[in-house]
Amino acid sequence: MMGLAATSTYRAVRGDTDFLSEPLTPEDQTVQSMPDVSPTKWHRAHTTWFFETFLLKPSLPGYVECHPAYGYLFNSYYEAVGARHPRHERGLVSRPGAAEIGVYREHVDGAMAELLPHADVDGSLRDLIELGLHHEQQHQELLVMDAKHVLGSNPMRPAYFDESPPHGPEAAQGFQAIGGGVVSIGADGTAFCFDNERPGHEVFLQPYAVAETLVTCDDWCAFMADGGYQRPDLWMSEGWATASAAGWEAPLYWRRDGDRWLVYSLHGERDVRGNEPVCHVSWFEADAYARWAGARLPTEAEWETAAPQPPAPEPLDRGRLHPGTNPAADPGGWYGQVWQWTASSYSPYPGFRTAPGAVGEYNGKFMVNQQVLRGSCCATPSGHARRTYRNFFPASARWAFSGVRLAAASEQV
Amino acid sequence: MMGLAATSTYRAVRGDTDFLSEPLTPEDQTVQSMPDVSPTKWHRAHTTWFFETFLLKPSLPGYVECHPAYGYLFNSYYEAVGARHPRHERGLVSRPGAAEIGVYREHVDGAMAELLPHADVDGSLRDLIELGLHHEQQHQELLVMDAKHVLGSNPMRPAYFDESPPHGPEAAQGFQAIGGGVVSIGADGTAFCFDNERPGHEVFLQPYAVAETLVTCDDWCAFMADGGYQRPDLWMSEGWATASAAGWEAPLYWRRDGDRWLVYSLHGERDVRGNEPVCHVSWFEADAYARWAGARLPTEAEWETAAPQPPAPEPLDRGRLHPGTNPAADPGGWYGQVWQWTASSYSPYPGFRTAPGAVGEYNGKFMVNQQVLRGSCCATPSGHARRTYRNFFPASARWAFSGVRLAAASEQV
Amino acid sequence: MMGLAATSTYRAVRGDTDFLSEPLTPEDQTVQSMPDVSPTKWHRAHTTWFFETFLLKPSLPGYVECHPAYGYLFNSYYEAVGARHPRHERGLVSRPGAAEIGVYREHVDGAMAELLPHADVDGSLRDLIELGLHHEQQHQELLVMDAKHVLGSNPMRPAYFDESPPHGPEAAQGFQAIGGGVVSIGADGTAFCFDNERPGHEVFLQPYAVAETLVTCDDWCAFMADGGYQRPDLWMSEGWATASAAGWEAPLYWRRDGDRWLVYSLHGERDVRGNEPVCHVSWFEADAYARWAGARLPTEAEWETAAPQPPAPEPLDRGRLHPGTNPAADPGGWYGQVWQWTASSYSPYPGFRTAPGAVGEYNGKFMVNQQVLRGSCCATPSGHARRTYRNFFPASARWAFSGVRLAAASEQV
Amino acid sequence: MMGLAATSTYRAVRGDTDFLSEPLTPEDQTVQSMPDVSPTKWHRAHTTWFFETFLLKPSLPGYVECHPAYGYLFNSYYEAVGARHPRHERGLVSRPGAAEIGVYREHVDGAMAELLPHADVDGSLRDLIELGLHHEQQHQELLVMDAKHVLGSNPMRPAYFDESPPHGPEAAQGFQAIGGGVVSIGADGTAFCFDNERPGHEVFLQPYAVAETLVTCDDWCAFMADGGYQRPDLWMSEGWATASAAGWEAPLYWRRDGDRWLVYSLHGERDVRGNEPVCHVSWFEADAYARWAGARLPTEAEWETAAPQPPAPEPLDRGRLHPGTNPAADPGGWYGQVWQWTASSYSPYPGFRTAPGAVGEYNGKFMVNQQVLRGSCCATPSGHARRTYRNFFPASARWAFSGVRLAAASEQV
Repeated sequence: MMGLAATSTYRAVRGDTDFLSEPLTPEDQTVQSMPDVSPTKWHRAHTTWFFETFLLKPSLPGYVECHPAYGYLFNSYYEAVGARHPRHERGLVSRPGAAEIGVYREHVDGAMAELLPHADVDGSLRDLIELGLHHEQQHQELLVMDAKHVLGSNPMRPAYFDESPPHGPEAAQGFQAIGGGVVSIGADGTAFCFDNERPGHEVFLQPYAVAETLVTCDDWCAFMADGGYQRPDLWMSEGWATASAAGWEAPLYWRRDGDRWLVYSLHGERDVRGNEPVCHVSWFEADAYARWAGARLPTEAEWETAAPQPPAPEPLDRGRLHPGTNPAADPGGWYGQVWQWTASSYSPYPGFRTAPGAVGEYNGKFMVNQQVLRGSCCATPSGHARRTYRNFFPASARWAFSGVRLAAASEQV
Repeated sequence: MMGLAATSTYRAVRGDTDFLSEPLTPEDQTVQSMPDVSPTKWHRAHTTWFFETFLLKPSLPGYVECHPAYGYLFNSYYEAVGARHPRHERGLVSRPGAAEIGVYREHVDGAMAELLPHADVDGSLRDLIELGLHHEQQHQELLVMDAKHVLGSNPMRPAYFDESPPHGPEAAQGFQAIGGGVVSIGADGTAFCFDNERPGHEVFLQPYAVAETLVTCDDWCAFMADGGYQRPDLWMSEGWATASAAGWEAPLYWRRDGDRWLVYSLHGERDVRGNEPVCHVSWFEADAYARWAGARLPTEAEWETAAPQPPAPEPLDRGRLHPGTNPAADPGGWYGQVWQWTASSYSPYPGFRTAPGAVGEYNGKFMVNQQVLRGSCCATPSGHARRTYRNFFPASARWAFSGVRLAAASEQV
Repeated sequence: MMGLAATSTYRAVRGDTDFLSEPLTPEDQTVQSMPDVSPTKWHRAHTTWFFETFLLKPSLPGYVECHPAYGYLFNSYYEAVGARHPRHERGLVSRPGAAEIGVYREHVDGAMAELLPHADVDGSLRDLIELGLHHEQQHQELLVMDAKHVLGSNPMRPAYFDESPPHGPEAAQGFQAIGGGVVSIGADGTAFCFDNERPGHEVFLQPYAVAETLVTCDDWCAFMADGGYQRPDLWMSEGWATASAAGWEAPLYWRRDGDRWLVYSLHGERDVRGNEPVCHVSWFEADAYARWAGARLPTEAEWETAAPQPPAPEPLDRGRLHPGTNPAADPGGWYGQVWQWTASSYSPYPGFRTAPGAVGEYNGKFMVNQQVLRGSCCATPSGHARRTYRNFFPASARWAFSGVRLAAASEQV
Repeated sequence: MMGLAATSTYRAVRGDTDFLSEPLTPEDQTVQSMPDVSPTKWHRAHTTWFFETFLLKPSLPGYVECHPAYGYLFNSYYEAVGARHPRHERGLVSRPGAAEIGVYREHVDGAMAELLPHADVDGSLRDLIELGLHHEQQHQELLVMDAKHVLGSNPMRPAYFDESPPHGPEAAQGFQAIGGGVVSIGADGTAFCFDNERPGHEVFLQPYAVAETLVTCDDWCAFMADGGYQRPDLWMSEGWATASAAGWEAPLYWRRDGDRWLVYSLHGERDVRGNEPVCHVSWFEADAYARWAGARLPTEAEWETAAPQPPAPEPLDRGRLHPGTNPAADPGGWYGQVWQWTASSYSPYPGFRTAPGAVGEYNGKFMVNQQVLRGSCCATPSGHARRTYRNFFPASARWAFSGVRLAAASEQV
């Protein structure tokens, strides 16, 4: 990424955030519907804060910060940067409003326009800008997930945007057998990746098989009809306790209406479509489903070994923010529909090192009590997907676009 | 209230709500900063719902409701009217937005313009309209209290409006002795009052004395300096536990800044002014203060017996939404500054009856575990004050404009 | 109470505590089944600590305390006496065990035998001993309530003791009309009473009527059958929320078994008997019942004005620790069956003063958010009852032996 | 294990439970000091219930259960066996008392004496008995951990038993380098092990180094002195939040007394001894310590590859229930002092299968959100230790005898 390229990439990524925010009213952008959710205007501000804090303040001489309180309000979790506003109180802050956040974004974008050309000649600057843009893309997905949770908490279930026409036909179902042995996973080399994908390293795999398609809503309905949510033998002990306490009986955003199930999507509430990938299930549910199906979840090494490279990027489409049928370029639905829960807990790779300074807090400090998801989803900016990408959420989380791909011992299929 | 008078009163009261909401942005109007607080736009909608539900639907032939979901969204607590949206989730509802609530208000006001002339000839209609307007005035005060809590939760402490110039000089301090015996309190007659003020009845009072002025911030600082928040012997047991758990060390909205105390008002944050009435203290604090001062709180019968009639109404002033110096018409500060905690728990008067139907839920069902406050405050619409008025909050509540007037046995002063 | 009389009274009261504890195993005496409950061995120790702290340490020269940690472990809530073990952790303290508490009691009783003769000539000593004995009697009732809650939490529902044969026939039902006017309530004079019963004073009453008998289990079953626990219009708002959250559908200790209701008593679990007074209902339930019955609860002044003097004391009977039929000496069941909830919140009487020193914390600091109960119950030591006695619990409490006597306006009956 | 051998092993293991319980009073045996802790008498009963439920009821003709309620009261978590008493309410059950549990144990031991000889000829019976005895040994350690927590919650900090004299000298400190490659871990073969240790399988390891000794209290004091509990950069994000909320500033059972630190052991409270292994630290603390030390925790595969076989069993010693100096047979302290936290989350081994029936619930359903510990501790019955043994607790747990052994990349040491 260099010179003009850096500038145009910067503009494109920042523009995508505005594009995704546009259908959301100032009121929509203010609400925090649960502690894990952040308001839209906070995401818009926090991604801006990242550039202001890690690029402009240290590297642009004479830069004047937009507002003295924003450093406190829009730091997410960087302890080394200083005190910050409590996460669960983000929804209390009505001011600055959505329009003022727009001013903040313009202020920072103007200053960045001065700084970006220097990335040509300064590699560490270039790396930080690249990190900032990938960081913003992560938050684009979070912004969509969180806005869906806000709108989905409204008893009127308003739509975010109209739906786009579907992709093509689905892939054939089946399992693909893969031989074991020592394989390499993770990232080396110079292409961008997050710190948690490094270093590349060897692992030993038993032979296994992995499903060629994602678990569908029809599959899930069969699980439900067979008492999947009523049989403790299918569940982890903590999963059963969680599901019982919360009264789970279907994926998040499903609602029973007489004999049928409705699903709330960002395009409004409508009937569940049987051939779509199931979405918004927790790891606990995915694990129980796999046990019921006589299979298991793949480990992240198994997933990465089996997965193809992601297809070429496509432009953002606000009408396709729900998992659907797969494009011809990815008939197995490895990317762009739902994140796929793995059997692996989130741990450092052998030899993992954090970056020095505050950006070193990026990933490492979350490496316990989380499960890894692989692939990408309908809300992931499509150029952001990588075969080595490691997403992670607690086993109980359901508000990400999370689904299921099965695995099994190779002799089972 | 009849004919044209009804129409102009209706317009005036409804207009006051708009006037108070005007400085609040759509984002401000959306936030619910704690479960007891309601968003501004909810108050604007709920007061409108009252007229739609109790007046228009039953009494205006051909009336078409504004939106089928509003009956569910904007019912507060009337069990008899049907299901309702949970109170603590009011802040999750971003839509309808502030502007759409404006449309709702206009829709109902238009229909009410048709209905209001009938109040001339229909007494029960007239009574319900009057109740609806007093209800809206109550919510005007709540709207201000709640907006203050929202803005005061923001670390930037934004102002709602600029401050108006102060009133005149203060009254002399002292106690007024009042003889005991059988006295009458409460309301009879035909002038409007809430159900909880009826019926008028006799009570027996011992001789007592009541303070001619309100407890000031200087007084409160003396209490604090003398360890008022550190001495359990001054407190009720539950009050001490509450204060310890919450870490109270000053009134709500006070913040220590080095050697001085700042107070957040709707006009922004500034130094505490010693001669202003102390405000935003709980009953627990008021009771502890009185014990420290060698006095006690008055009972509500004592308060009512000693109090003058309220002064003539004044127009709303957005610059005077903080207690200050008293006008010449009320030198003792009985009305228009701070509600005054009494020693009385909130109970039905002998012979109390609730109204038939859903409006009967107005007051009676809250008559336990609350303490009565008397007078009125700077956020009370001034024509809304009455000598017999019974306000009430839990002993731990601090976000109302609540302060302290002392009482004592007559031989003590 | 003087000299030998003091000594024999002391022995008798202290012996009653042992008599009540005897059927409880060391394990029974250790459990704290909810934060409000104290373990039996804690009651045995705390009543002993009272004599050690307020009598022996200040007044018996050369007294050596039994154990240096007991002052910390067995102080209940006297802030002025020093730090104390947290109330909700009383059930964590397995040592000292039940037998060691017995040694503590003997140690203090031995020292008290030296001190008691001095009460002849020292009035303030005499007053404190008398307070200590009344305090111990209060704890005898708490010990029984609490042990019932412990045993009743056991799925095996073990009996504490076998039941004694019943008393005589019941009284006729009906209401008694009482004229209003200024009456005197509370205590003056020199006979023992708690500080909260003083001073005697005048109050003004409207004419009223009070039930001649207690509400029975048959009455309560009619309330239940009529949807009493399903109709929010009968309940205080906070009561309805409490009952809904806790899933109340009958009094505490009642359990549905097919078509019938069982009740757990200290004599084991058995069928509900229709003609017994209903027991273990909260104020919220009592208030809802009264509204359903077209009546109300009496105020404490009304109760005291209507009530007779308590009958002559009877010895403790471990077989009669459940409300039943009334003795001839008290056919209306005013005493010795169930405490009777009143409409009055617990407040200081006009002119109330606390005693100087730590014993002044006895009652005053609980005078908010509690409702007064009058009379006495089957677990109250019978000589401990007084017409002016003011018992109190939060409106949600159910584990006391609490029941209902109705009142009404005099024209209603 | 066959015939007479089975009988004598059965008696020995069951006898060890009695031996460990003996110093605990009936009151000690009743208390549940936190939800994770079970009362001693519950452990004694539950281990007995295991034999009654899985051996006697299905396999001993004519067996009569000891008490019909015990199946409900003493089932721990076996969903397939039926309803059970809630875990967090185990401390409410005062009856059956400690002595009655003794009767239950004798009842079952008598019946087992009849059944044990059949284990000679019935392999599946033999396997279940062996499982039951290992299960009982697990509970012996839990019984000790839990009793320590109960006694340690007592402000008087009573001792369980007097301390035995120490072992011999300590090992030299240092790291041992181990080459990487494909290694085998886990259990195959016929010797007893738990299901979670199977199947044996290959994993790929990078070269690494592992500490030859355990982290000591002196080491830990250096960490504390260097601000270990005040520096968020050393901690996992969730660990920092947990430590802050709970106010951790030292290991569990440590208490500051002026300038020195005291530690509560089962032999009473005394000064921390610098050369003892640190104990009662959570995974969060162990992980932060390792980061501070410039090292990391070993994975479980690394631990198992480096560890020796456990030394020969020794008889139980109630005076040695605290980690101390190591015996000559295990100079590196791999076993018998403290469990050693690993970097590995608890997951199924490739090809893991649960046993059919209710005993299949033994381990598998806990395989999420837990961290693995390896080795054994001073409270582990010494014959119960295995090189492949996988213990596990949540990352926040501190009441197990858990400590730290460091690892590092091989080039670092």
